[in-house]
Amino acid sequence: MSKDKPSIPKGTRDFGPATVVKRNYIFSIIKRTFEKFGFLPLETPAMENLSVLTGKYGDEGDQLIFKILNSGDFLNKITPQDLEQGYKPLTRKISEKALRYDLTVPFARYVVMNRNDISFPFKRYQIQPVWRADRPQRGRYREFYQCDADVVGTNSLLCEAEIILMMDEVLSTLGLDDFTIKFNHRGLLAGIAEAIGAFGREADLCVAIDKLDKVGQEAVNNELREKGISEEAVTQLQPILELSGDVQDLLPQLDALLQTSEEGQRGLRDIRQMLAFLGSFSLNKAKLQLDVTLARGLSYYTGCIFEVKVNNVQMGSISGGGRYDNLTGMFGLPGVSGVGFSFGVDRIFDVLEELNLFPKDSQTITQVLISNFDDAAMRYSLPVLQTLRKAGIAAELFPESTKLKKQMGYADQKNIPYVLLIGSEEMESGQLNLRNMRTGEQKSLPLAEIVSELQNSLPA
Amino acid sequence: MSKDKPSIPKGTRDFGPATVVKRNYIFSIIKRTFEKFGFLPLETPAMENLSVLTGKYGDEGDQLIFKILNSGDFLNKITPQDLEQGYKPLTRKISEKALRYDLTVPFARYVVMNRNDISFPFKRYQIQPVWRADRPQRGRYREFYQCDADVVGTNSLLCEAEIILMMDEVLSTLGLDDFTIKFNHRGLLAGIAEAIGAFGREADLCVAIDKLDKVGQEAVNNELREKGISEEAVTQLQPILELSGDVQDLLPQLDALLQTSEEGQRGLRDIRQMLAFLGSFSLNKAKLQLDVTLARGLSYYTGCIFEVKVNNVQMGSISGGGRYDNLTGMFGLPGVSGVGFSFGVDRIFDVLEELNLFPKDSQTITQVLISNFDDAAMRYSLPVLQTLRKAGIAAELFPESTKLKKQMGYADQKNIPYVLLIGSEEMESGQLNLRNMRTGEQKSLPLAEIVSELQNSLPA
Repeated sequence: MSKDKPSIPKGTRDFGPATVVKRNYIFSIIKRTFEKFGFLPLETPAMENLSVLTGKYGDEGDQLIFKILNSGDFLNKITPQDLEQGYKPLTRKISEKALRYDLTVPFARYVVMNRNDISFPFKRYQIQPVWRADRPQRGRYREFYQCDADVVGTNSLLCEAEIILMMDEVLSTLGLDDFTIKFNHRGLLAGIAEAIGAFGREADLCVAIDKLDKVGQEAVNNELREKGISEEAVTQLQPILELSGDVQDLLPQLDALLQTSEEGQRGLRDIRQMLAFLGSFSLNKAKLQLDVTLARGLSYYTGCIFEVKVNNVQMGSISGGGRYDNLTGMFGLPGVSGVGFSFGVDRIFDVLEELNLFPKDSQTITQVLISNFDDAAMRYSLPVLQTLRKAGIAAELFPESTKLKKQMGYADQKNIPYVLLIGSEEMESGQLNLRNMRTGEQKSLPLAEIVSELQNSLPA
Repeated sequence: MSKDKPSIPKGTRDFGPATVVKRNYIFSIIKRTFEKFGFLPLETPAMENLSVLTGKYGDEGDQLIFKILNSGDFLNKITPQDLEQGYKPLTRKISEKALRYDLTVPFARYVVMNRNDISFPFKRYQIQPVWRADRPQRGRYREFYQCDADVVGTNSLLCEAEIILMMDEVLSTLGLDDFTIKFNHRGLLAGIAEAIGAFGREADLCVAIDKLDKVGQEAVNNELREKGISEEAVTQLQPILELSGDVQDLLPQLDALLQTSEEGQRGLRDIRQMLAFLGSFSLNKAKLQLDVTLARGLSYYTGCIFEVKVNNVQMGSISGGGRYDNLTGMFGLPGVSGVGFSFGVDRIFDVLEELNLFPKDSQTITQVLISNFDDAAMRYSLPVLQTLRKAGIAAELFPESTKLKKQMGYADQKNIPYVLLIGSEEMESGQLNLRNMRTGEQKSLPLAEIVSELQNSLPA
C-alpha cells in the first residue's frame, strides 16, 4: 500500500450493501406510505444558488452551509482589498453555489418557481441527502438523508389527521409497537402565555420549556426568570406544565384555562377538528398524547405540532412536523401555508437495529448461488441460471471453478439463503442439490421443483 | 414578487413529480436487473477528500471537479504569498473536499478501504448523482446520475457475457426492440496495430478511429498521418475498418489477419469464450455486433469493450463498459481487475420519450381521488378512504369542499386515473360513483366492488 491510504471526509459514511439494503427497506416503507396518501415525489439539485440558502437558517445556520468554490479562476475579480475584509465577505465573491442544508427551502423555491404549473393543494414528498458543516459526533453526520412530506395550499385539518395516520402506518409497518405521537398547538402555547400573564411571550416560553426533558423544571424556571417572565407567571405555569392524562381529560381543563384567549381557543378548535377526523380512522400501534410542553422550534410553526418518541428506547424523536404559515414568503410569494413532517432515518435505523426488527428476508438480494465445480458443471449450469432468472429469482453462478469452501463463504458473506450444488452426480440424474444456508438442510430436486421452492421462499 | 426571484444553478435540474416517476421507472428496471444478476448496492458520500479525486481524471478533469470551500475561516492560514501564486495552488489550501466526479474512483477507494472485509468477486452496483463543472449544453448537465455495475476480483469471461445479458434485459424490459450491442477487444485493436506495422500504436489508432462516425474516413486518415502512422499502415488499415458481417464471418478473417499477434489472439480467445457462454443463453431483443472500430477511451480498458446504440434514433450510446486492469492501483493496491458497465439514464429517458415507451400506468401514483362535496360527504368518505388504503390502494380525499371542477382539474393534473364521486344520493344508496378519468366511463358500485375494480387496475 502507498502512504496515501484513502479515507472519506469526517462526518460522512459509505453505505455498504448490507446497510444500503436495510436503509432501502426503511425508505421503501416510507415512500409506499407517502404515496398511499397521495404524496408525489420531488427531487431538487444538490447544489442551490448560495443566495437562495443564505439568511434562511439564521447566522449560525449560514455558517454551517457547505459552499462550493466557483470553478475556473475564482480569484479573477478579487482585489487585495477584498482579501483584507476577511473570509465572510470573500465567501460571497468566490462562491456562488452551495449544498442544500435542508429540503424545506429548496421545496419553497420550487413552489415559487413553478407556482403557475402546480395544482394546489400540492402534496409532495422528498427523500434526499442534505449537508451541514456541523461538528460530527455520535449520531450527527455532515451528510444525511431527510424524508419530508408536505401539503401546501390548504388549511384543512384533514392534513394534520393524515400526518398522524402516516406516522402510525410507517412505524407500525416497520414493526414498532410501542411509540407515542405527541402533539400540541402553537395557539395553546400562546394561550398559556396569555393565561399566566405573559401575553406574547410564548416564544421565550417555548425555548425554555423545550429543554424541560433535558435540564429539569428548576433550570427551566431560572431561564424564564432570566428572560424577565414574572415570578407570578412562572408560578402559574407550573401546574399547567404538569397537566397530564389523556386528551379527553385535558381538553376541558385547557378549555377552562384558555377561555378568554383567542389563540388558545383557535388551538383547541383545531385539535378537536383533527381528533374528529381521526375518529373515523383506526390507528395501528400509535399512542396519542396531547403534550402542552411540546414546543419544537416554535418560530417556524403556527398551528399543530407533532413529535414521535419510541418508548423504552434511549433515542430522541424519530419523526416530527407541524403547520406553518408563509412557506414561500422568503421568496416574495406570500400566502402559501402548509403542513409537513419528516422521518429521521438514521435514528429509525438505530432503533430497528437495537430492537432487532429488520426482517431477515429484507436483507436478501441474491436468492441462490449456483456452485461452480469445473468447466462441465459450469456449462451445465448456464441454462439453469437463465431458467432461474426468467422465473424472477435473483441468481448467480460463481464465475470461477474454485474451492467449494470459498464459494460457500461467498454465499455466507452475501447473505445468500440458498446454494445450488451441481456436480457430476447431479448432472447425470438431473436431481440438483439445493442447500438451505440457514438451516443446513439439503434437498435433491429436479430444476422445476427448485424453481417453485425458491419462488415460494421469496419475500412477499 | 420580490426582485430576488429564485433560480437554480445552470446545468442543474428540478425533477417534478411527473419526471421523477418516469425516472424511477427506469431506475427500478435497472436495479431489478442488476440484483437479479447478483449485484449488491453501494452508496458513497457525495463529498470525497479532494486528494482522493485529484489526478484521477487528467488535468482537464481536475478543473471540472467542484471543490467545497473549507468551513469556518478558510483564510486563517493563508499568507499574502499564497494569494500571489494564483488560484490553482490556493485551491488546495482553502478546499479539502470536493463533489464526486464519477462513481468509479469512489468505488476504487471503497474497495481499498474495505479490502479485508470484502469477499471477492465483489459485484456492486451504484446509482447516484455525480457533479462536473462542464459547460452546460443540451443533454449535458452539471449534476446527473450514473448507474454503474462492476465485478472486481475475477477474470471469468462469464462476467462479460452477463453484461451483454443485462444490457439486453434492461433495454428489452424498457420496451426497446431495435438496438445493437457492439463489442470489441483491446487485444484486437493492439493486434490490428501490429498487423499494419504500427506495433504499440493502438492508443493513437483508437483516438483517431473513435471519431470515424463523426468526422469520416478521410479526416481519420489525416489524423493518423499527423500522428506519424506510415502511409502504408494507413492504407493497410482501410480494409480492416471496413470489415463487416456477423461475428461468425468476422472471426475467421480476424484470425487470419492477427495470426502472429499475441494480443490479437488473446482478444479472439476472450471473444470466443464470451460468445460460448452467451450461446447457453437467449437474448431478448439485442443484436450483437463485433465492431473493430469501437474504441471507447482505450487507455482505461484492457479487455472486452461494449457500447449500445438504439437503432433509428438520433442519440449517442446509451450504455457502455469494458474490462479494466488495476482499478485500485491509483490507491496503491495492485492486482484488482474487473469489468463494469453503466447506463446513461438521461439519454434512455429521452429515447423512451421520443418512442413514447413510458407505460401509462408507470406514471400513476394516486390511484383514486375521492371528491369532497360538503362536510357530510367528507365525514362519510373518511372510512371509505381508510378501506381503500388498507386494500393497498393509493387514495386521497380532496381536503376541502370546493368546486367539483377544481377537484377534477386536480385529479387530471396529478394523472389520477379514477375519481370516486360521493354525493347525497351515493351516501343514501351506498352505491358509489366511480369515474374512469381516461375513458370518462362512470359506474355505480358498492364499496367492496370498487375496491376490487381498483385493485385489478393496479399496475402489476
